[in-house]
Amino acid sequence: MSGEVIYEGKAKELVTTEDEQILIQRFKNSATAFNGVKYAEFPGKGALNNSISCFLYEKLEEAGIATHFVEKLSDTEMKVRRLTIIPLEVVARNVAAGSLSKRIGWDEGKPLPAPIVETYYKKDELGDPILADTHILMLKLVEPSILEELKQRALAINDVLRPLFADANLELIDFKLEFGCDADGTLLLGDEISPDTCRLWDKSTQAKHDKDVFRRDLADLVETYANVAQRLGVEVPEEARQALEERD
Amino acid sequence: MSGEVIYEGKAKELVTTEDEQILIQRFKNSATAFNGVKYAEFPGKGALNNSISCFLYEKLEEAGIATHFVEKLSDTEMKVRRLTIIPLEVVARNVAAGSLSKRIGWDEGKPLPAPIVETYYKKDELGDPILADTHILMLKLVEPSILEELKQRALAINDVLRPLFADANLELIDFKLEFGCDADGTLLLGDEISPDTCRLWDKSTQAKHDKDVFRRDLADLVETYANVAQRLGVEVPEEARQALEERD
Repeated sequence: MSGEVIYEGKAKELVTTEDEQILIQRFKNSATAFNGVKYAEFPGKGALNNSISCFLYEKLEEAGIATHFVEKLSDTEMKVRRLTIIPLEVVARNVAAGSLSKRIGWDEGKPLPAPIVETYYKKDELGDPILADTHILMLKLVEPSILEELKQRALAINDVLRPLFADANLELIDFKLEFGCDADGTLLLGDEISPDTCRLWDKSTQAKHDKDVFRRDLADLVETYANVAQRLGVEVPEEARQALEERD
Repeated sequence: MSGEVIYEGKAKELVTTEDEQILIQRFKNSATAFNGVKYAEFPGKGALNNSISCFLYEKLEEAGIATHFVEKLSDTEMKVRRLTIIPLEVVARNVAAGSLSKRIGWDEGKPLPAPIVETYYKKDELGDPILADTHILMLKLVEPSILEELKQRALAINDVLRPLFADANLELIDFKLEFGCDADGTLLLGDEISPDTCRLWDKSTQAKHDKDVFRRDLADLVETYANVAQRLGVEVPEEARQALEERD
């Protein structure tokens, strides 16, 4: 059955198509933080995240990174391959921020000597806790070789994204990835990459250009995300343009 | 200078001797929990932990595990080799309990498929957070080969302790270790092993025989620790005997 919503998350939903192996990933305008405690709607946010994500997944594919991305369908929709998602949030970091700063006591903004990859259990009811390899293997969330592969891929994706953002005068501080396997068992990057899932700081001013503006009430979210799109050379979608015009 | 207190912790202090490479580890009667938030004094506790620790370190040495233990000096004092402590708490676990239960959502008491080793940053001001290997190596807390060695030693120590406690009808649920290097650079087990640093449950009743009786106000701490000593065949020290007689 086509058009069935088979997954509804905080910021996206997945809808079936006539091809069982293809889904529509539809971006919503809602923003949540602190495991759903903070919530708001931002007209234009879904379209911005879809546009930025489509742009970045195309760049990743060009660089030889296998992703679930098939094509952009509409302002808020991306056609993707259907995945069985691995219940891990794979986080790559270049600069200390957020929970890493708290964990190890390094000031936000301190560059790491080399990029690192962390793994979190994708389980809302547990608050997405950090996991060490030993937990992941005990829980049989992935095979040991796949765990290594996830870390390597996260670093390879970092190597593609970081210069892309640097060209837009944005420092890629850290970002979250999700992976899964398609029907053939091929490991693919899933989910999205957007200012919702990255920390992006202006290279000159250190101003935050990501979901921290919502978490910490720092700036207008849609304006901020639209600025990221513009810097990357991504057209700002109609709904976001209208939302911005309305507040002028 | 002999007799100088060079370290004072929550439950122990370290005192210099005439031999620069030898220290006295003196056990105190104070108990703390929740990173120092809960605090109390228990006459007899220090002597019990020293007696149990001396007994266990002797058993470990007999099994070929290198430790800082030299000899028992008095009811509350153990002679030890001076170590530069690695700032990691190495935790071995056989059964889900405490923070592991919360982290992965397994009920307390669920046996793990195999023992696991976790690592925590020994840093009170950060709340002793859990670390993955990537953090440990980035922070240069130990060399990669030493990190592997720490995990292997923790498992080897578990293999010695678990049957020892099982013979006392106690299940070794989990325990915390600290390691360090002596002046020659030899890696040795340091610190203590006692009901303060282990979770021990009665194999028949599951009753807790460890610091959780203090953390969760479940039973008389000195009575509980004295019971552990007796079960192991360790003589209950005079101060603890007196404390117990006084409450009869």
